[in-house]
Amino acid sequence: MSRPIPPLSAAASACPPTLPPPTTASEDAFVAVAPFDEADRAAVYRAIATRRDVRSEFLPDPIEPVVLARLLAAAHAAPSVGFMQPWTFLVIRDPTRRAALHDAFRLAHAREAAQFTGERGERYRALKLDGLREAPVHVVVTADRHRCGPVVLGRTQDPTTDLLSCACAIQNLWLAARAEGIGLGWVSIVDRPALRAALDIPETIEVVALLALGRVDRLRTSPELEQRGWRTRLALADVVFEDAWGNTGAGPEAIVARL
Amino acid sequence: MSRPIPPLSAAASACPPTLPPPTTASEDAFVAVAPFDEADRAAVYRAIATRRDVRSEFLPDPIEPVVLARLLAAAHAAPSVGFMQPWTFLVIRDPTRRAALHDAFRLAHAREAAQFTGERGERYRALKLDGLREAPVHVVVTADRHRCGPVVLGRTQDPTTDLLSCACAIQNLWLAARAEGIGLGWVSIVDRPALRAALDIPETIEVVALLALGRVDRLRTSPELEQRGWRTRLALADVVFEDAWGNTGAGPEAIVARL
Repeated sequence: MSRPIPPLSAAASACPPTLPPPTTASEDAFVAVAPFDEADRAAVYRAIATRRDVRSEFLPDPIEPVVLARLLAAAHAAPSVGFMQPWTFLVIRDPTRRAALHDAFRLAHAREAAQFTGERGERYRALKLDGLREAPVHVVVTADRHRCGPVVLGRTQDPTTDLLSCACAIQNLWLAARAEGIGLGWVSIVDRPALRAALDIPETIEVVALLALGRVDRLRTSPELEQRGWRTRLALADVVFEDAWGNTGAGPEAIVARL
Repeated sequence: MSRPIPPLSAAASACPPTLPPPTTASEDAFVAVAPFDEADRAAVYRAIATRRDVRSEFLPDPIEPVVLARLLAAAHAAPSVGFMQPWTFLVIRDPTRRAALHDAFRLAHAREAAQFTGERGERYRALKLDGLREAPVHVVVTADRHRCGPVVLGRTQDPTTDLLSCACAIQNLWLAARAEGIGLGWVSIVDRPALRAALDIPETIEVVALLALGRVDRLRTSPELEQRGWRTRLALADVVFEDAWGNTGAGPEAIVARL
């Protein structure tokens, strides 16, 4: 079920110091909200629908620091279990570090390619699975799973929830990037020890994701793995049940029919 | 490092059948894109910045099926490792199932409360940590980790990536909900076996998250755990490094100073 949290070694971790309790017990503060107007709602749905995992479409233009800062702030605004904010974002532009990250991709890519044979193997080798050389900026997302000490509110039931928080941060960053005209590719094929060595990441810190970012002026209309025939998009009705597992009765079909 | 994928039992899983390879090898299709205009970009950032983990603000109004369908479609538009789309969404409105989910929360809550003692324990018991009774709709997100067979493109390097894909789907749903004026609370304190039993979820399927959804007309201006003094928001500059771990030189500070 669970992904265990590795023990913290005696070596110093990069945890921030324990925060002092605030002097006031409660400062509840609310703001009135309403549904976004139609144009704003459409903008949110447009970011969600047109976001792509970019491999080949990166332009060489640099990303302005102010834009990069907005993307990082969007990521940092993500929800996190027990408000632990476990993430750290490494922004990599140094050519030597970049080359080392590309080596970490190639190492894992050769290993994975060997697992697909025959027609599937040919199809695999025809795919472009990273854009690390083309993208001007790399972002590595890590999790400090010890950041709040051993007992984290909400994480006691599932140790993986802190990693899920990091994925929410990545999705925030991805959607903000889409709105900024910046493409993002999540390079999941990467040798973790090589990546760790390339960026001096301590053993106490977990590597969550390697992202490639760069400006784009075109995107695929649907995922590359769909266009290249690797897999088909599932129907929404096939991934929704009502009230219990396996219940595809009138409920979800009625919902989906209204789409 | 990794969260292992449990073995698939001999019992039938709910995997869709293996999809046939398409007849055409490649159908690359692109569309020209540009940065969103300022209003649309602001809408995306507004959803990201004002999204909250809702506990106490749910209104009893039902969620219209067409809106619920849009939220589920937004979730289904998330990225997934190897395009495996591992998620299933269970939409729960049946009173008996809802009560069983609330029991699953209470069971875990009592267990977790015992882990916080003294002043921390008092603070913990003063927190409202679920809104299951108030929210008219519950959504449980699960992962079918066997959906694409044992070898999934990109997952070979980190078995947890399929769960991270599910978290991206949840964040999509959360931001879409914010734009629709719907609050969402991720209830991470829940007894997994009790939840599984409540919804007849097979052992081969992993429970990722229990979400409570309902219309809201107010939201907190910052996270409840921050307002109630449980933890403080970290500074963005403290969670950004440049080029390598620990490098807080001019780079990230220059970025952040421009915020």
